[in-house]
Amino acid sequence: MIKVAIVGGTGYTGVELLRLLVGHPEAELVAITSRQEAGRGVAELFPNLRGHLDLAFSEPDAGRLADCDLVFFATPHGVAQAAVPELLARGVRVIDLSADFRIRSVPLWEHWYGQSHGCPELVAEAVYGLPEFNRERIRTARLIACPGCYPTSVLLGFLPLLEAGLVDTGDLIASSASGVSGAGRQANIANLLTEASDSFKAYGVAGHRHLPEIEQGLADIAGAAVSLTFVPHMLPIIRGIHSTLYATLSDPELDLQQLYEQRYRDEPFVDVLPAGEYPQTRSVRGANWVRIGVQRPQQRHKAVILVVEDNLVKGASGQAVQNMNLAFGLPETLGLEAPALLP
Amino acid sequence: MIKVAIVGGTGYTGVELLRLLVGHPEAELVAITSRQEAGRGVAELFPNLRGHLDLAFSEPDAGRLADCDLVFFATPHGVAQAAVPELLARGVRVIDLSADFRIRSVPLWEHWYGQSHGCPELVAEAVYGLPEFNRERIRTARLIACPGCYPTSVLLGFLPLLEAGLVDTGDLIASSASGVSGAGRQANIANLLTEASDSFKAYGVAGHRHLPEIEQGLADIAGAAVSLTFVPHMLPIIRGIHSTLYATLSDPELDLQQLYEQRYRDEPFVDVLPAGEYPQTRSVRGANWVRIGVQRPQQRHKAVILVVEDNLVKGASGQAVQNMNLAFGLPETLGLEAPALLP
Amino acid sequence: MIKVAIVGGTGYTGVELLRLLVGHPEAELVAITSRQEAGRGVAELFPNLRGHLDLAFSEPDAGRLADCDLVFFATPHGVAQAAVPELLARGVRVIDLSADFRIRSVPLWEHWYGQSHGCPELVAEAVYGLPEFNRERIRTARLIACPGCYPTSVLLGFLPLLEAGLVDTGDLIASSASGVSGAGRQANIANLLTEASDSFKAYGVAGHRHLPEIEQGLADIAGAAVSLTFVPHMLPIIRGIHSTLYATLSDPELDLQQLYEQRYRDEPFVDVLPAGEYPQTRSVRGANWVRIGVQRPQQRHKAVILVVEDNLVKGASGQAVQNMNLAFGLPETLGLEAPALLP
Amino acid sequence: MIKVAIVGGTGYTGVELLRLLVGHPEAELVAITSRQEAGRGVAELFPNLRGHLDLAFSEPDAGRLADCDLVFFATPHGVAQAAVPELLARGVRVIDLSADFRIRSVPLWEHWYGQSHGCPELVAEAVYGLPEFNRERIRTARLIACPGCYPTSVLLGFLPLLEAGLVDTGDLIASSASGVSGAGRQANIANLLTEASDSFKAYGVAGHRHLPEIEQGLADIAGAAVSLTFVPHMLPIIRGIHSTLYATLSDPELDLQQLYEQRYRDEPFVDVLPAGEYPQTRSVRGANWVRIGVQRPQQRHKAVILVVEDNLVKGASGQAVQNMNLAFGLPETLGLEAPALLP
Repeated sequence: MIKVAIVGGTGYTGVELLRLLVGHPEAELVAITSRQEAGRGVAELFPNLRGHLDLAFSEPDAGRLADCDLVFFATPHGVAQAAVPELLARGVRVIDLSADFRIRSVPLWEHWYGQSHGCPELVAEAVYGLPEFNRERIRTARLIACPGCYPTSVLLGFLPLLEAGLVDTGDLIASSASGVSGAGRQANIANLLTEASDSFKAYGVAGHRHLPEIEQGLADIAGAAVSLTFVPHMLPIIRGIHSTLYATLSDPELDLQQLYEQRYRDEPFVDVLPAGEYPQTRSVRGANWVRIGVQRPQQRHKAVILVVEDNLVKGASGQAVQNMNLAFGLPETLGLEAPALLP
Repeated sequence: MIKVAIVGGTGYTGVELLRLLVGHPEAELVAITSRQEAGRGVAELFPNLRGHLDLAFSEPDAGRLADCDLVFFATPHGVAQAAVPELLARGVRVIDLSADFRIRSVPLWEHWYGQSHGCPELVAEAVYGLPEFNRERIRTARLIACPGCYPTSVLLGFLPLLEAGLVDTGDLIASSASGVSGAGRQANIANLLTEASDSFKAYGVAGHRHLPEIEQGLADIAGAAVSLTFVPHMLPIIRGIHSTLYATLSDPELDLQQLYEQRYRDEPFVDVLPAGEYPQTRSVRGANWVRIGVQRPQQRHKAVILVVEDNLVKGASGQAVQNMNLAFGLPETLGLEAPALLP
Repeated sequence: MIKVAIVGGTGYTGVELLRLLVGHPEAELVAITSRQEAGRGVAELFPNLRGHLDLAFSEPDAGRLADCDLVFFATPHGVAQAAVPELLARGVRVIDLSADFRIRSVPLWEHWYGQSHGCPELVAEAVYGLPEFNRERIRTARLIACPGCYPTSVLLGFLPLLEAGLVDTGDLIASSASGVSGAGRQANIANLLTEASDSFKAYGVAGHRHLPEIEQGLADIAGAAVSLTFVPHMLPIIRGIHSTLYATLSDPELDLQQLYEQRYRDEPFVDVLPAGEYPQTRSVRGANWVRIGVQRPQQRHKAVILVVEDNLVKGASGQAVQNMNLAFGLPETLGLEAPALLP
Repeated sequence: MIKVAIVGGTGYTGVELLRLLVGHPEAELVAITSRQEAGRGVAELFPNLRGHLDLAFSEPDAGRLADCDLVFFATPHGVAQAAVPELLARGVRVIDLSADFRIRSVPLWEHWYGQSHGCPELVAEAVYGLPEFNRERIRTARLIACPGCYPTSVLLGFLPLLEAGLVDTGDLIASSASGVSGAGRQANIANLLTEASDSFKAYGVAGHRHLPEIEQGLADIAGAAVSLTFVPHMLPIIRGIHSTLYATLSDPELDLQQLYEQRYRDEPFVDVLPAGEYPQTRSVRGANWVRIGVQRPQQRHKAVILVVEDNLVKGASGQAVQNMNLAFGLPETLGLEAPALLP
């Protein structure tokens, strides 16, 4: 059994990690910390866990965390930076669900996150935890930077085209939409049911923090500079990300369907739909799948790639568990086998 | 492994049964029938099952069903009646999710369902599959009539009071509300998102088919005649039933909280919330739990009992699996351990 | 033209009042106050008003308010109490949408609202603004206490039965449900889309502030003491209240349908549905209607009354405008003629 | 008063037209036809109209229609074609909300709609009813083809850029999303609340019937051939269309904000939001507004234009009324003044 702790477990990625770990046969959850909720039973905050988890939030305690094999950070950005060095030094592996170690350029990180980076010396070591691109490096990583929710969908959507060098990398577009849980469990008028339901809007059009993370990932995959226009939207749903990707094909005769099916044939969590079918977010609700549909409308030069994921699972906590499985030599799908909830 | 088949698997109780059986370690699904969809892959209809189930719908075939240890009927009422006798004769056990064998009075059944009963001779043998009331009889039953979704919530809500003989059985009220999945997967203008979302209404106030089933169950529990006013409502949600129950207490000093906690202490799927807390349907989304809150407002003579369940799980397919576990000597919670999906 | 001001216009009853007054041919809106948003354009906060209203929030200013013919208070409880005496003294009429003047017993008000009443001397003068019960007194009132949202639906639902003395007043039940806008425009985790959508729950079961207001109103109508069990629930919709009312009939042969049709025949905003039909909240979305269906299930002794309203219109701002029309001698329906928005 | 009839009033554009005409001071509704619902009261089908409209559906009757000044067709495609010639011959003007007369190339229409055109001789005369582009021609038109819902949003979004010749017309992208009411009031499993809510998906990616209509309109505006990639999506909301438009600017220094504000300064129903703001669909719920935000992310070469409308109002019935106002010399905004419903 892997001894596991979660730092900062009061948000949605926290409760989702708990839900997945409760059913994981090789993980033993020994602590979940929260300064604000210390002493309160986890199931008081998250009533779905009543009867499943008899654990209370505790104050962060370095000694107790150091006893673990693995610590997940489900904290706002800026928190993991301060705590990671000591944990690594004491032999604990870390999977960080926040943005702290995702961007390799420290100045770029500092520009987009508006603060100094507290641990620049570990940025280069951190492995970007996208198994479909970085599987081997993840197996041995001490520090895994779990990808953001939007980036996971956009990177997996463009990956086959970029790896094969088949598109104009200077003109990529991602029109993405996320459920409200992507905004976190924060009191905020804009995310009230009365404000966010029965409506749809774009936000962060001038620049969203996931843009540099996505462009870095796309460039890594392409082995070349890329330029992405990224427009996120807020969906009146709880969970789910849908990315509609547009790219100009160098060869309009390309068989997109075959390209995607071949690339993802052996991936346990990437499902390429049959030709002519398009994914819906509910088909991955609560599950670690990414489902992808591809189309070249009117046989023109634009490829349209449609990608769905559950932002809290493959976009966050499920991917974190997948990374844990890889890093500890377990079957990659362990604890992640449950189908999505539909309807 | 128990060899299992599902007759009529194209509705919501069908797909939910599939979702649960896919993860059940002791059930082997050998067939799922549908005249209309015969030959079509199950995962084409239910995209959450892509990658989990490589099975196609097949024509109902008596021989193939007779090879099974257990057949579930997830059919409209009237279908199981015709097929059950032969299956029982050939040694197959049956769990019927439809209403065919729930009501012991054949004339009453015929009145409410508007047709002749096709198999009155088996009605008396059928065991009403509410484990919290009938556990021992279920263990040995050949034919289990799985309770309706509303009845499960109302019966479990009133049960402690009725068993203890503490309320006026002539004046019970159930104000219940169900998600739209309770109406099934049928093309119907009234259940379109455009008609049913962002709205709320009562229906079937003059008389709903679940009324005689509930009154029968309440009378069985109370050992006395009961009169129930039952008003169902339609909620603009996908899954979930919430029943608000009202009863007049004979002893207004009764400690409701203690009564409920004691009665359900050992039940694996009934959760009595702490005093002053009330359940929400999302806390059981996708899970087999019933959660109950109790209150005596203003210390007056009315008991108010609040009950939630997922209508497709504890209200249908989860309860069916619980019955299967009991009937085949398995741990009662097997395959039903996953927490609810929240948020 | 009536010169009108709104005090405290940043909540949902405020924006709804603005929406209605913008289209009212006899009201001229001269000021809308908010300490917090002073200087900000109203349409910045409420984008539906862009192009309709070129007004900014202003600091409350006693002199400016005193220049008006009428001041609406759309403030939290406790605010109107402090400001009303001076306005009345200067000849301004007041319609208070808050709870400050609804309850005639000052100690009862102080018990439920947890504070001293700041203006007990005006409580007796205030007229409870339910036109269907108090129309004549409203015409001449200086100070109108606009009913709460739940109370409007429950009082209008029970009114015909209570006026006619046909039910057991010691055993009334209201199982009510409100859209989330009833909770106001406040940052609150429980009302996030992620928490409140796709779910349903009861709240305030032990005692809700609308209980004493409703019991007072019911007793006024009945001319006798009443006892009400009131259970509010939160619906995952934006607008709308649905109350399901239960009462024991003294004469089970009563023709409910006829009773309600006769009582409400001349009411401009109360619609009794044909026999066997039940109202849905969306049928009054954005409109000042109350729609009512009645039923006596199974011809037993319980009357079931189903009532819908838009909590922001007939439950708040629309009723306030209706009261304004009465108080200023205008046609009662002026500015309130638009049909509900459906779908 | 203009004597008006509606042919085919049982769908969502029909009920919306009724809602708007009920409040229109210069329109007198004399008939609404439906073969299927003939004899049934309109308010039975659409409960929001109870108390507002005392009219029953009637069989289509050529004589009665010919007595009108104006007939609206709110029918499926193919119906208006058959009836329009006689009406025009008898001096009745026609506003067709269906697709029958929108596309000037008859073969193109026949290709996309899969049937022969029943009235090719009138196609050339029909005026495309987009007032912002065709206002003067609409004033005198006998036959107005009301634009589709998606086309209205895409055309108004690209119009200023195309008129000014500032973008690459060979590479336009529209990522659009519509509420479910866009699919009409048809019994259809895919549009059940259980299937369509809490989810998001693209559809019609290979080719949607609105593509040729949009490309025709874009080309008319640009005075040049255009190529559009159009991907529609289905939103889990009732009403609303949001189009996110992408275009490559010839001059990346262009001041988009100024361009849009100037172009739409005098338009009564087009609202250009302040710089940095993006529209939400709820801000136009029930209203005839189009609201537009513009952005050039990262100061690169892509313009991103965000457009919202209510698909049933500016996308259908509101635009039809706007066209009626123009065609009959009334103030363009008459009967369309009500603000959107928010929250």
